[in-house]
Amino acid sequence: MIRHQQNSPPIVYKNANGKGVQVEETRIAVIMVGLPARGKSLIAQKVVRYLAWLSIPAKCFNVGSYRRNDTPQPTAEFFSKGNSEGERMRHAAAQAAVKDMVKWFDSGEGVVAILDATNSTKARRGWVAERCEANRIQTLFVESKCDNEDIIMANIMEVKTTSPDYTGQDPEDASQDFLNRIREYEKVYETIDEDEKHLTYVKLIDVGRQVIINQIKDYLQSRVVYYLMNLHIRPRSIWLSRVRNLPQHITTSGYPPLIVFLQHGESEYNLSGQIGGDANISERGELYAKALPELVAKSVSPDQKLIIWTSTLKRTNQTARYLASSSKGYDKLEWKALDELDSGVCDGLTYQEIADQYPEDFKARDDDKYNYRYRGGESYRDVVIRLEPIIMELERSENIIIVTHQAVLRCIYAYYMNVPQEQSPWMEVPLHTLIKLTPRAYSTQEERFRANIPAVSTWRGKGSTAKHQ
Amino acid sequence: MIRHQQNSPPIVYKNANGKGVQVEETRIAVIMVGLPARGKSLIAQKVVRYLAWLSIPAKCFNVGSYRRNDTPQPTAEFFSKGNSEGERMRHAAAQAAVKDMVKWFDSGEGVVAILDATNSTKARRGWVAERCEANRIQTLFVESKCDNEDIIMANIMEVKTTSPDYTGQDPEDASQDFLNRIREYEKVYETIDEDEKHLTYVKLIDVGRQVIINQIKDYLQSRVVYYLMNLHIRPRSIWLSRVRNLPQHITTSGYPPLIVFLQHGESEYNLSGQIGGDANISERGELYAKALPELVAKSVSPDQKLIIWTSTLKRTNQTARYLASSSKGYDKLEWKALDELDSGVCDGLTYQEIADQYPEDFKARDDDKYNYRYRGGESYRDVVIRLEPIIMELERSENIIIVTHQAVLRCIYAYYMNVPQEQSPWMEVPLHTLIKLTPRAYSTQEERFRANIPAVSTWRGKGSTAKHQ
Repeated sequence: MIRHQQNSPPIVYKNANGKGVQVEETRIAVIMVGLPARGKSLIAQKVVRYLAWLSIPAKCFNVGSYRRNDTPQPTAEFFSKGNSEGERMRHAAAQAAVKDMVKWFDSGEGVVAILDATNSTKARRGWVAERCEANRIQTLFVESKCDNEDIIMANIMEVKTTSPDYTGQDPEDASQDFLNRIREYEKVYETIDEDEKHLTYVKLIDVGRQVIINQIKDYLQSRVVYYLMNLHIRPRSIWLSRVRNLPQHITTSGYPPLIVFLQHGESEYNLSGQIGGDANISERGELYAKALPELVAKSVSPDQKLIIWTSTLKRTNQTARYLASSSKGYDKLEWKALDELDSGVCDGLTYQEIADQYPEDFKARDDDKYNYRYRGGESYRDVVIRLEPIIMELERSENIIIVTHQAVLRCIYAYYMNVPQEQSPWMEVPLHTLIKLTPRAYSTQEERFRANIPAVSTWRGKGSTAKHQ
Repeated sequence: MIRHQQNSPPIVYKNANGKGVQVEETRIAVIMVGLPARGKSLIAQKVVRYLAWLSIPAKCFNVGSYRRNDTPQPTAEFFSKGNSEGERMRHAAAQAAVKDMVKWFDSGEGVVAILDATNSTKARRGWVAERCEANRIQTLFVESKCDNEDIIMANIMEVKTTSPDYTGQDPEDASQDFLNRIREYEKVYETIDEDEKHLTYVKLIDVGRQVIINQIKDYLQSRVVYYLMNLHIRPRSIWLSRVRNLPQHITTSGYPPLIVFLQHGESEYNLSGQIGGDANISERGELYAKALPELVAKSVSPDQKLIIWTSTLKRTNQTARYLASSSKGYDKLEWKALDELDSGVCDGLTYQEIADQYPEDFKARDDDKYNYRYRGGESYRDVVIRLEPIIMELERSENIIIVTHQAVLRCIYAYYMNVPQEQSPWMEVPLHTLIKLTPRAYSTQEERFRANIPAVSTWRGKGSTAKHQ
């Protein structure tokens, strides 16, 4: 019998045979498929980040970077079908990547690997599938197929000319060379079709106009697929921001989309050093609430429409009050899922009281803050699981301003900024400060805007029982 | 500015333009497409039940039942293409159904309508789409396409011969007539293809071997699609239980699948009449836990493998202890989402104490128990939202035995048995009793197995503060 730990998130649950298993028994390779400049690496990177956030060990193996070891700056000619030396070297790079991937699985570290390459022929995909099967690795092929020239060119301009392949080269020349490289791939490219109906695959056509899902059998596969679908329902990747003739199904009002988030204004409990509860904001918190419309106006351009999300607790609603009733008339929505981490029996206590009344718990929390679950309450891991629908919604949404709580904010921030679990619960997130994130193709840009209104510090160092630090 | 109520579940949130809206502004028609015996009505019925459970007003409009008003027991000949009188009457039935659907939307009651009919030609689908567009109704076409003869015959034998069309007729004759009816439809059937790429649709091929999703733009649409995908990842509908030559992607070990659920054994808090908390089970609770392996053996056939799900609280784990360590060696998994409804500030109080200390809350809860949220805690509505991933998982899973708590059990039960929100929080779910549900095509069969071990009653009537009733 397998005994699961209290803290296992539901996601590490099932495999294809419907048996309760630990996720360690699962090995899935997500194999990217598609011509260059179809957003494959962007998808790969987002999937890795999403899975890592859910505590599922994931890693990307980029065949291009293996190839770059031998051929740092190839010209398009290198990728031509006739160039047998180029072909040999590209195959060697794929072999090296797959070999490392298998090693990673065998080491016991890995659950989901992403193989980021064009994998543009049936023969190549057959070879990858065969290598994976031989190593008891399930495969999920993810093809991004797009024939819209505007989208492709925008992606090239935005992303590819900054690729390591073109470091120090003129962007126009780089673009042209890259287009030539695509032409070489196009000559041999075979899309996934009926011949490959035995494969488990997802085909994303024209940035989500159509999605074809084939032979999904496994829980974790279906999670990845659902995430991909959400990414593509309202595509927000920066590489679309320069596209004029977008397909009709893509809305791009206010691109790039952004997420602004902040804690509630200083609360009465913050002043007394108590945790949890449902206190009112303090006088200074009220000042902050009043200053918020101006602070938001400073950080967001006037034509960017925002929607306000708050928790259901008083302090976030009081903080958002003036913003919601300002002349901008932002819509406001309350989410139970944005409520603060539930501190169970410790709700309403100060850290000193917790240390006195529950010394073992106090220590256990410091030892592993991410996994520690308050008696009758929640752990950071629990909060991440309940925030998952929020993340899905954020991926689908346009500009959002989130007024929430310290632990919740840390978890959302960790998703966007890829903060490891050991660090995220200790992150400093000052009161009366607005954080603006602008997701870009390969990074997320962060800006902080501080209101000039003092507040206590709610950050607590390991071992400390101080009311404020 | 739209001000949302505290209790709005996140699902009633967005429409295609990304604006925060109340769900009342949304009108979606889910239009079923497919030959007879492809599970269309089953899908329609499940979608209605799922949405209703999430508080989204949904209703099914079955064209067949409109047609039946005029022609109660037609023969296959009625459906032949040459039969212009039959065609006229079938079109009249479709018109009547669409008319009623529009009326239902216009009354303000409706959010999602399901139009259950074959809609088997492009012309018919074009007509439906046009009618919907004229009435500001978004459309989502859902085609079930299946060419596996075994599955189709099983469906006919299981479901169709019990259809009102064949009441009182010999099943063999009925099957033969129904097969002839399908042949008539096959002559004119056109699957959704590239010509209709402007439509929003989902195509479910061979009971989920392949799923094609086209032009999904809207949040609620994507929810329905995700639900459909989950239904089809591990199809468990009863109409597959008799199929011998199932496609390879369908696992059917232990069909029909079942869900067994029960409350934890009587707890110390149950004895003292306190709510919430994390108490141990009582002596009688311990007896129940010991009797459980035998009680389960009585209710489930020995070849049915079960997985045990518990909450993270002591009383469910103690209750499942002997079952998990029994010779059957069931796997066990703990879910935070199965924890009891959080009673916030009232945690640990008796009903009398709540009535004394929070008289307004006590009354408010009795007035609207489904929507009442304990201060700092949860409402039934909140519990339903956090249980949604559990329901998705149950739809994907094989046989499960859930050991949980009164309010959670009521919510899960309400999903399967379609219990309205006004009733579900008041449902009596006795301790020391096991409930077994066997989902069948058009109903769910319920059996209860009572352990012969006394326990207090945890059911409370409206207005009562009695410790036990």
